Amino acid sequence: MALHFTSERHLDDGVVERPFTLGEIPGFLWTPASSTAFAPVPLILLGHPPLGLDRMYPRLVARARHAAADGFAAATIELPGSGDRPRWDTVEEARSELRRVMEAGEPVSDEIVDALVLPLVDRSVPEWRSALDALLALPEIDGPVGYSGGIISIGIRLAVVDPRISAAVLFAGSFVPRAVFEEARRVTVPLHVLLQWDDEGNDRQASLELFDAFASKEKTLHATMGGHTGVPEFAGEAAARFFTRHLR
Amino acid sequence: MALHFTSERHLDDGVVERPFTLGEIPGFLWTPASSTAFAPVPLILLGHPPLGLDRMYPRLVARARHAAADGFAAATIELPGSGDRPRWDTVEEARSELRRVMEAGEPVSDEIVDALVLPLVDRSVPEWRSALDALLALPEIDGPVGYSGGIISIGIRLAVVDPRISAAVLFAGSFVPRAVFEEARRVTVPLHVLLQWDDEGNDRQASLELFDAFASKEKTLHATMGGHTGVPEFAGEAAARFFTRHLR
Repeated sequence: MALHFTSERHLDDGVVERPFTLGEIPGFLWTPASSTAFAPVPLILLGHPPLGLDRMYPRLVARARHAAADGFAAATIELPGSGDRPRWDTVEEARSELRRVMEAGEPVSDEIVDALVLPLVDRSVPEWRSALDALLALPEIDGPVGYSGGIISIGIRLAVVDPRISAAVLFAGSFVPRAVFEEARRVTVPLHVLLQWDDEGNDRQASLELFDAFASKEKTLHATMGGHTGVPEFAGEAAARFFTRHLR
Repeated sequence: MALHFTSERHLDDGVVERPFTLGEIPGFLWTPASSTAFAPVPLILLGHPPLGLDRMYPRLVARARHAAADGFAAATIELPGSGDRPRWDTVEEARSELRRVMEAGEPVSDEIVDALVLPLVDRSVPEWRSALDALLALPEIDGPVGYSGGIISIGIRLAVVDPRISAAVLFAGSFVPRAVFEEARRVTVPLHVLLQWDDEGNDRQASLELFDAFASKEKTLHATMGGHTGVPEFAGEAAARFFTRHLR
């Protein structure tokens, strides 16, 4: 798929922001203004929840600024069925079913988790790989590549199938289908796993089992207090240091 | 109890090492050469396992050098019944019993854990507090005070009973008596808890429950791979940054 930059904007702190389209998929690339063909930089893929890039923009650009300050490019693409991309009935129906079940106080079955997450993983992982193909072809970007945050199942699948991913920061805070849990046993890249200890929407015990399942020789679990969106600033900094250790 | 320095030695990297006696208890104080009455520094108490200061010296001095580089004094004292201090039958007997049970592959009962740890906590915590009295009276040392590592039950008791302890790095890797587990619910200072995920001598589930029990609003669990003595260097650095955040 061809990558087309649609505009270019210099943010105040030496970061260049370039929205792009990859085929029909919208995305963003942020690079330190200092990166050139003669001094290419490593890349961090910024994962995010399926709420649409517009809504996620403030948090994404903050993460990209942090990455640029550490000497990394950062990029993200819209998830299928989110933001300005066409509505995707399969996933919409699974979300309605999840809402219904949660409001009724019923347990969330494996079937619901599968219906909610697997189609998203199956469809978005090849898209992230196409984005990687296009981004790594740019002269100012070089490997290694890190993946950070968002839907943990996407990060797991990507780390298993794409050897260009050298390290990953995963956020243990969403439903993980049984099949992806099994894939986790094949992840071998260095991992930094964030867990919000009191995450309302997250099964803590399942997250600890998932952490245990990863085959990576270097893996760190970093559990901090608070709910899903309450990740403290120092935890973000610890994740940034993890990338600096592995991508430089 | 009176503190007497028995010698003074300048280490190569600007650290002053002063062995001392506190009554009959041997100990060490390490300070950055730059600390004076006009520029006093915070203090980190270095906990350690009951193997004797002589045997622990290389690891203790490495931790002290790291602390000094971050602008902190570091101090430690010998545990009762260890090193050059008089043999303590109560604890020796509990250790023999533990060895016997472990060699026989029997479960370690609450009674054994109590006999092994409670006398040590009851006797050493007042000693650490006396050391604190004496050390904080030195013109080149100032609060706040951090406690780091060693027997976790000593760190917990100290954090509960001594308001001068402002932050603690605890190492989840030793038996915790039920009574101390209950004390953990009264710990409110910021905590950074290290857990070696594959620690042979440690019950992982019990460590997670202990982490959950602490009342501290800021507490971080930092789990890394490897056995009891295999704490990776980056985990030590994360603990150092925790102290820099809380003691400066």
